[in-house]
Amino acid sequence: MDGEEFRIRGREMIDYITEYLDGITSRPPYPKVSPGYLRELIPDQAPRMGESWAAVKADIERVIMPGVTHWHNPHFHAYYPTGNSYPAILGDMLSDAIACIGFTWASSPACTELEVSMMDWIAKMLQLPREFLFSEEGKGGGVIQGTASEATLVALLSARTAAMHKLREHKPDMTQGQMLDKLVAYTSEEAHSSVERSSLIGMVQMRLLQTDAKGALRGVTLESAIKEDREKGLFPFFLCATVGTTSRCSFDNLAELGPICTQEGLWMHVDAAYAGSACICPEFRHLLDGVEHSMSFNFNPHKWMRVNFDCSTMWFKDRYSVTEAFEVDPLYLKHDHQGKAMPDYRHWHIPLGRRFRSLKVWFVLRMFGVSGLQQQIRKDVLLAHQFERLVLADPRFEIFGEVVLGLVCFRFKGDNAINERLNKMINDDRRIHITPSAVKGTYFLRFAVCASSTQGADVTYAWSVVKEMADKVAASTAK
Amino acid sequence: MDGEEFRIRGREMIDYITEYLDGITSRPPYPKVSPGYLRELIPDQAPRMGESWAAVKADIERVIMPGVTHWHNPHFHAYYPTGNSYPAILGDMLSDAIACIGFTWASSPACTELEVSMMDWIAKMLQLPREFLFSEEGKGGGVIQGTASEATLVALLSARTAAMHKLREHKPDMTQGQMLDKLVAYTSEEAHSSVERSSLIGMVQMRLLQTDAKGALRGVTLESAIKEDREKGLFPFFLCATVGTTSRCSFDNLAELGPICTQEGLWMHVDAAYAGSACICPEFRHLLDGVEHSMSFNFNPHKWMRVNFDCSTMWFKDRYSVTEAFEVDPLYLKHDHQGKAMPDYRHWHIPLGRRFRSLKVWFVLRMFGVSGLQQQIRKDVLLAHQFERLVLADPRFEIFGEVVLGLVCFRFKGDNAINERLNKMINDDRRIHITPSAVKGTYFLRFAVCASSTQGADVTYAWSVVKEMADKVAASTAK
Repeated sequence: MDGEEFRIRGREMIDYITEYLDGITSRPPYPKVSPGYLRELIPDQAPRMGESWAAVKADIERVIMPGVTHWHNPHFHAYYPTGNSYPAILGDMLSDAIACIGFTWASSPACTELEVSMMDWIAKMLQLPREFLFSEEGKGGGVIQGTASEATLVALLSARTAAMHKLREHKPDMTQGQMLDKLVAYTSEEAHSSVERSSLIGMVQMRLLQTDAKGALRGVTLESAIKEDREKGLFPFFLCATVGTTSRCSFDNLAELGPICTQEGLWMHVDAAYAGSACICPEFRHLLDGVEHSMSFNFNPHKWMRVNFDCSTMWFKDRYSVTEAFEVDPLYLKHDHQGKAMPDYRHWHIPLGRRFRSLKVWFVLRMFGVSGLQQQIRKDVLLAHQFERLVLADPRFEIFGEVVLGLVCFRFKGDNAINERLNKMINDDRRIHITPSAVKGTYFLRFAVCASSTQGADVTYAWSVVKEMADKVAASTAK
Repeated sequence: MDGEEFRIRGREMIDYITEYLDGITSRPPYPKVSPGYLRELIPDQAPRMGESWAAVKADIERVIMPGVTHWHNPHFHAYYPTGNSYPAILGDMLSDAIACIGFTWASSPACTELEVSMMDWIAKMLQLPREFLFSEEGKGGGVIQGTASEATLVALLSARTAAMHKLREHKPDMTQGQMLDKLVAYTSEEAHSSVERSSLIGMVQMRLLQTDAKGALRGVTLESAIKEDREKGLFPFFLCATVGTTSRCSFDNLAELGPICTQEGLWMHVDAAYAGSACICPEFRHLLDGVEHSMSFNFNPHKWMRVNFDCSTMWFKDRYSVTEAFEVDPLYLKHDHQGKAMPDYRHWHIPLGRRFRSLKVWFVLRMFGVSGLQQQIRKDVLLAHQFERLVLADPRFEIFGEVVLGLVCFRFKGDNAINERLNKMINDDRRIHITPSAVKGTYFLRFAVCASSTQGADVTYAWSVVKEMADKVAASTAK
């Protein structure tokens, strides 16, 4: 395909995208296919000779669309939202055209420098402590990671390196393995599964600490865990606190946890993957109170800030603590400007190569403006409260936890089994799509406001489906 | 920006992309900016209100382009190529529009299933052993990782888990740390820096073994290292072999190394990040001889197979060996079809979320056909040999190593210092862009055929620049 053909096919794709997104309610949020459906629809090997665009394009509807879970259908209420917007798509198109690999400053200066500026822009939108900014005199700075899982892992590994340096100072004869056996990390029992996974990768013990009734990890709990572990001769070094858990959007108490971490020499990492976006609204910023005590912080603009996946923004108070954990420096990646005013981002994360992701961020921030992004957050939170009222108005249902942002956790009053049945019926029905969760043995349903186009009528619709299914479940139980 | 505006802006972007790529020779391959250039050109915070597309678009040329290293300029010969093509861009556009997060089968069946099929397609193109395919009866299968660095890390971590299981069977009382202290991994001294980095993350000792004169790690070297380490009471568990090193495109001897790994119980991972693509041509397939002994294999279609970054394809002989290393399983990610015919890819890599990357692979494979992709490889190898002949025709120069694929390593006869000066002059001149490397103390220049549009005239041009600069260096040395 040459440039002249691309001009035509590109326009066709632009039209297709517009029609797909603007007409998405005509497709079910959750597809009706069984595992293995696709293999039957395509050849079992690549074609020898190139095919025409017409053949490829026709297969989008024939092969792909029947098996897509349409996350941007306003009847999709599963997981958490994932970002999408026309400006972000335009930014990604440009990134794909430039197709540079920004591993060092020299490998594409604009790629590194726009990211540096965007990280400062977003830090200011969130009113993050000044120490996290590049533009300050200190050692702060931010980077775009792919996902929050990677951010958590990078934080844990950086903290591990720092802790091992400390241990080695006191006990220079310890082996690496002996040091690892001493290290202990903490997170709450309600933290995302990727946090525990980071400890498996990092080969350190991680304790999942109990939360309070509201799902918050509290200072006293951490304090006594640290004390207990020190008495056992262990070396507590890391806490991953969550602002907006995946299960029920609960909030660890950073203001209590932070000072304890500072005093006890623990690295506090704050994972605000979903909730972070809301903190660009002054009325929600208090959710981050205490973040000033953290060594690293991340949230996902690709969740709730209209930026397409992947874009997980992460800041460090001391950027050298991450580069120290990862730096290896071969000649073929050295350049004249190394180590000067601008970072070499390859030392900041697990991959070496990186796309020009800051373009989509730049396009989104400029075309929506802070005000436009705040509007999105506020609308979605109002919609969640609308759903909450509908739940509360039906005496058969209860809200699980508290509705603070765009997630409503609710359940049919009764045992878990009936809620599991209800969940299955709702999803098998396929008019809306939700996902369940469980906390401390209680199973519940999650209603998340996901697609940016979701409106009040979609919330009413979702509730009508839930109610209809609940009637059926209740009837079958009564029998 | 609504759909109607996107139809217009999208077309503008399509036109911009076409003009950018088709007119790329009018821009220098390496930009003339200093660190910090971009910060001066944009505001220091996000705008309060949304801006117009006209304002954003104008800034692409004003802010971004002056600082871009143009990897797709045919005078760019640095690092290794990175893929780009119109079909891949179209695939990514569609992926961005669907914007699903394919962490489980249920979160978007098409996303998982197309990837499964594409991994089998590519495995067949490479004539990988049948055990690596999903479509076989065994436990094989492949996954798209972001980068080769991640693939290496995933291989090392999977091997580590397997090794620790074995160790635990024999010595159930060992702590994790004690086991880690025993583990030893191997790679060659010429392997990519990310391999060593994976051992830092994995907290295992890694020995960088000596290569032979051609840059190959040989069986006898590995054998004696294993013996030495076993005598020390260590537990050798992993080898990362390279097919096409970054420094000079040398090739470890898989046919010798593989049987030793099998016999000694080591997990052999083969990293063919760059060279792998060439193995779709029968005449280069022998470079992979011995891969049948590996437990895992990866290469980067995003390097030399016209697929845009990121796309690093990785296969396992036993896919359960990777899921076992990473599996954590919360309720909010469970679904009815779990563990059946199709994989849940979230267990196969470091991130949880994932883009619909197989779309761009599918578009590229279908629109180029295997034959079109082979043509690209063959053309680039011929161009490398053309450059090689030009180097050899000048008695002041020598080739370093052997030209097998699209990389020519060469040097001005003399000491390293003169070659460092030559490298600096070529890059400061900015008509072409190259990167140097060094092996066993010898510094040399690397000429890689990168942009897919590179032609014979570009090779002649590059050599004329090198010659001109060499004349200057020689003149200044003679003084």
